[in-house]
Amino acid sequence: MPMLPMIEENAATAEVRAVYEDIKAVRRSDWINNFWKVLAQHPPTLRRIWDSVKAVMQPGALDPLTKEMLYVAVSVTNNCEYCIHSHIAAARARGMTDTQLAELMAVVGLANETNRLANGYRIPVDPQFQPPA
Amino acid sequence: MPMLPMIEENAATAEVRAVYEDIKAVRRSDWINNFWKVLAQHPPTLRRIWDSVKAVMQPGALDPLTKEMLYVAVSVTNNCEYCIHSHIAAARARGMTDTQLAELMAVVGLANETNRLANGYRIPVDPQFQPPA
Amino acid sequence: MPMLPMIEENAATAEVRAVYEDIKAVRRSDWINNFWKVLAQHPPTLRRIWDSVKAVMQPGALDPLTKEMLYVAVSVTNNCEYCIHSHIAAARARGMTDTQLAELMAVVGLANETNRLANGYRIPVDPQFQPPA
Amino acid sequence: MPMLPMIEENAATAEVRAVYEDIKAVRRSDWINNFWKVLAQHPPTLRRIWDSVKAVMQPGALDPLTKEMLYVAVSVTNNCEYCIHSHIAAARARGMTDTQLAELMAVVGLANETNRLANGYRIPVDPQFQPPA
Amino acid sequence: MPMLPMIEENAATAEVRAVYEDIKAVRRSDWINNFWKVLAQHPPTLRRIWDSVKAVMQPGALDPLTKEMLYVAVSVTNNCEYCIHSHIAAARARGMTDTQLAELMAVVGLANETNRLANGYRIPVDPQFQPPA
Amino acid sequence: MPMLPMIEENAATAEVRAVYEDIKAVRRSDWINNFWKVLAQHPPTLRRIWDSVKAVMQPGALDPLTKEMLYVAVSVTNNCEYCIHSHIAAARARGMTDTQLAELMAVVGLANETNRLANGYRIPVDPQFQPPA
Repeated sequence: MPMLPMIEENAATAEVRAVYEDIKAVRRSDWINNFWKVLAQHPPTLRRIWDSVKAVMQPGALDPLTKEMLYVAVSVTNNCEYCIHSHIAAARARGMTDTQLAELMAVVGLANETNRLANGYRIPVDPQFQPPA
Repeated sequence: MPMLPMIEENAATAEVRAVYEDIKAVRRSDWINNFWKVLAQHPPTLRRIWDSVKAVMQPGALDPLTKEMLYVAVSVTNNCEYCIHSHIAAARARGMTDTQLAELMAVVGLANETNRLANGYRIPVDPQFQPPA
Repeated sequence: MPMLPMIEENAATAEVRAVYEDIKAVRRSDWINNFWKVLAQHPPTLRRIWDSVKAVMQPGALDPLTKEMLYVAVSVTNNCEYCIHSHIAAARARGMTDTQLAELMAVVGLANETNRLANGYRIPVDPQFQPPA
Repeated sequence: MPMLPMIEENAATAEVRAVYEDIKAVRRSDWINNFWKVLAQHPPTLRRIWDSVKAVMQPGALDPLTKEMLYVAVSVTNNCEYCIHSHIAAARARGMTDTQLAELMAVVGLANETNRLANGYRIPVDPQFQPPA
Repeated sequence: MPMLPMIEENAATAEVRAVYEDIKAVRRSDWINNFWKVLAQHPPTLRRIWDSVKAVMQPGALDPLTKEMLYVAVSVTNNCEYCIHSHIAAARARGMTDTQLAELMAVVGLANETNRLANGYRIPVDPQFQPPA
Repeated sequence: MPMLPMIEENAATAEVRAVYEDIKAVRRSDWINNFWKVLAQHPPTLRRIWDSVKAVMQPGALDPLTKEMLYVAVSVTNNCEYCIHSHIAAARARGMTDTQLAELMAVVGLANETNRLANGYRIPVDPQFQPPA
């Protein structure tokens, strides 16, 4: 049971309903997932987070599938069960294959390993890696 | 100063030198970065980690730039200063633009935010997100 | 099933029972939650952790509700399911409203986001933020 | 050196300058800290993150000092050097004393400890902690 | 349900079966745990991770029980439910007692606490702790 | 510069001095490291954390070197620069060799990798790993 109850579509205020409708329109979907139903308890957060997701995840210099895979990489590193499920589903809906998922997981695993080797040994950054001024 | 001293190329044993040469050949590079020079204190780890990096980061179902960006996403989430520098440099060498970097950072930031909202509210996974059997 | 079995009150040694009684007295409660029942397998840890909780969470320069909310913020960031439940319950018992919980979650989410932007971009600390000497 | 160069006020476009002016007005401050100067490389992110900070950190059901302390708790848990400095400075500007800071740190430390005890022992959540339906 | 389906022994290809047989031989065990059955969906990862586990966890300058306890310490810190179960079971199989488990947990908890105190207060490293050159 | 100033031995109150003397006596050392000098700003925390460190790190069912190595494993996973330095120094003082350090780092790296594979793939815990009742 979530820490605040979920607000179903038929019980939503006009303010919440407007966000729900925008989510469905942008996603060409006919249902609202649980994440938004809990955030709906605090409408300013529902609106703000949805506006951020809509802006950040839209096509840009990176394509939507790449963005979903980056989202998965973070969610796996942080162990967010909900986000792992929802963003792997979203990536699959955008064409991610099982082999691409396996390669993504391999990169995430390896990065978590070498992150600790670099941090643990306190390895100094090579001057060649400095960003351009 | 790193926790174990770095082994320069001209001080390397044959075993270490063989890995250094493979790194340079695969990367078409003429220098060895500090990460490997510290791992070289334990040759089995140097060999094993390099073989893993070589296998995982090669072109596959995901292209090398996507893999580098996934690596950056994990390294930023974990706050590995060395890895942030080295993998952003690698991604730039493979063509990542400043705008792509900014979009990558925006996704990483947002994913870290919604990961906590989903975990904090203990939001139940929608049945629609279950993976195919 | 926990990694070590729980010790119920009626099965506790005198040493464990003394801590249980202190927990109930300080909290004006008539039951012991599972956390302590597992720690009870190692009485020095049970005693030490309880003494720390009692000392740290007592009213001081910060009031108990603020302390509980700080505890929730950490537990959400670390994804400790048990601690999220127990400390949100404790904060509610001390008067935290649903709106306060929603604002707390919003701060925790945003802080996790900007933490990664600041770490990822390696932003130098402004001299104005240096602590007073 | 940050991963993208900082944009100073006198080099800002009108779009960036508008955000900078809003930051200074809301904060009654006459300077812009480095965090925003780096985000300014991607104006949509600059605008979006500032709008989020402004909305989330304003007085609400929680007062601004409590919000700043929650921000510090998350930043310490995640080890964000920049955010630790900037949000401790902000909390001090809102009246946080050294003793309050020390109590905050004690809570954060203890929560990080008991989070691992609860997660490590896989302690089942007591039914009494379930949120109200 | 895992994100990719598990491959049972009787459904494994020769390539996967060879790894399964090696796992059973090295561990003197007659079954394969779920971790490997999922990795088997991507045979190069199955082989690579198993080779790493075999190499890293073999007796060396550290004995296998110490290595398993270090594995538990990391898994508890990261909250990996699967790894906590599997590596505590492995440590017990190598002789870890309940008291040793309790002491391990106490160290892990305390280290997570003092890590945040040291990071939060930004305590400068004493020159006496510098590694030998 | 730390977030609260350090209190040197010659400026310590009697209460702080008593802890400092106990630290030096237990460790058979003639100096106080920075960690304690900052905690000394809040004497109840100084006393409580020192008492915890003294109790948890003393010889028990696990020997002091094993405990120090567990401390290092956690500190590397969390990226606590101060703690990595101080606890590697302590482990070396108790006999840890460079090869043992390298094996420790290899275990920590690998555990961080497989933690993400297990969490990311949502691998179900095998019934064989359930703890004894």
